[in-house]
Amino acid sequence: MNSELPKTLDDVVRSFAAMPGIGKRTALRLALAQLKRPASEIHRFAAALINLADNIQYCSSCHNISDTDICYICSDVKRDKSLICVVEDIRDIIAIENTGQYHGLYHVLGGIISPVEGIGPSQLNMDSLLQKVTSTEVKEIIMALNATMEGDTTVFYLYKKLKSYPVRVSTIARGVAIGSELENADEATLGRSIANRQPYENSFSS
Amino acid sequence: MNSELPKTLDDVVRSFAAMPGIGKRTALRLALAQLKRPASEIHRFAAALINLADNIQYCSSCHNISDTDICYICSDVKRDKSLICVVEDIRDIIAIENTGQYHGLYHVLGGIISPVEGIGPSQLNMDSLLQKVTSTEVKEIIMALNATMEGDTTVFYLYKKLKSYPVRVSTIARGVAIGSELENADEATLGRSIANRQPYENSFSS
Repeated sequence: MNSELPKTLDDVVRSFAAMPGIGKRTALRLALAQLKRPASEIHRFAAALINLADNIQYCSSCHNISDTDICYICSDVKRDKSLICVVEDIRDIIAIENTGQYHGLYHVLGGIISPVEGIGPSQLNMDSLLQKVTSTEVKEIIMALNATMEGDTTVFYLYKKLKSYPVRVSTIARGVAIGSELENADEATLGRSIANRQPYENSFSS
Repeated sequence: MNSELPKTLDDVVRSFAAMPGIGKRTALRLALAQLKRPASEIHRFAAALINLADNIQYCSSCHNISDTDICYICSDVKRDKSLICVVEDIRDIIAIENTGQYHGLYHVLGGIISPVEGIGPSQLNMDSLLQKVTSTEVKEIIMALNATMEGDTTVFYLYKKLKSYPVRVSTIARGVAIGSELENADEATLGRSIANRQPYENSFSS
C-alpha cells in the first residue's frame, strides 16, 4: 500500500511497521506524526534510540534493564534479599513495583519456555537463578509468570530444578480479580479461587 | 509510572509516549521492543528519522509529501489536470489512490478548520488552491474531507471562496457503505443516501 510514498518517509514507515503490534496503517500515522514535531525533537528521539542501542545494560545480578552494572533494586539495602520474584520481563517488575506490596528482589528470565517460538530453557536466564539459590541467603522463590500454558510450563520446569535446593517455591495467587463480579470470571479462574480459598482474616492484610 | 526506569530507556519511552495515540504502556512496550532488535536496525531507524527531519519536502504544487520539488502525481502527464481533489492530509491521498478510480490531481490542505484546536483558514494551504483555480485549466474541485463538523465547516468555507470562480465544486458521495447492512447504518448516513439517490444505471459504473 505504501509503494508510492517518498523514500524519505517510507524508510521511517517501514521501521515503525517492523515493531510488534504496529500495522502498516499505524506505522504511516506515526511516521506522519513525526513531520508535525519540530526537527529538534526528532533529532532528540533519534539520539535517544542510538543511546539505547549502544549503552543499555542489564543488571548483572537480576537481568533487569539498568544504566549501571547492578540495578537500583538489587543495590537497595532496604530490600529483603531472602525473597526472589521470578518474572518474564521488565514490564512485570514495573507492574509489581507499582503495587507497593513487594520488597524483595527480582529475577528476570527474559522470556518463557515456548516450543512454538523455539524458546527453550537455555535461552533464558535460568542458570544464574540456580546459582543465586546456592550461593546466597535466598529463602523463597516466588513465581510471577503469566497464567498461560507457556508460563505454567516454565514454572514447572523451574520447580523441578529448584526442588533439590533448600528454598520454598511459591506462585502468585490466581483468583477472581478484586472489584470484579463472580459471574464474569472464567471457570478456570473461579475454580482455582475456590480450591485455593483463604482464611477470612487474610483478606484484611493489604 | 516510569519513574524508576533507567534514563537510557526512559528517554525512548518518553519520545514514543509523545506520539499521538501512544499511551505510556504502549510506549514502554515499543521501547522494550527496540532492545530485541539488532543494534544495527535501531541505528538504521534513527538515521531514517534524521533523514526525514532534515530532508523531507512538500510538493510545491499540491503540498503532498515528496522527495522532489514537484511530487510524482503532479508531474505525471497522464493525470487529468482539470480535476483537483481537496484532501486533509497525505493519508487521504493514499486511500484514494488505492481505489484506482481517480486520475486527477490533489491539493493537500494540511488540516481542517478547527476552532477547538485553534486552526483557522490562514494555517491551511488555501491561498495556493485559489491561486491554482485562477491560473490553470481547473474545471472541478472535488471536496474529499472527513464528514465531521470540522470537515463540513472547511468545505463550506472553501465553497464560499470558490463560488466566484468558474469552477464546479463537488463533494464525494456520502451513503451506506458497499457490503454493509441498512439496519446498521446510522440515521444521518441512511437519510443522506436516500436524499442523494442515484439512477440505477450509475451503480454499474465502477
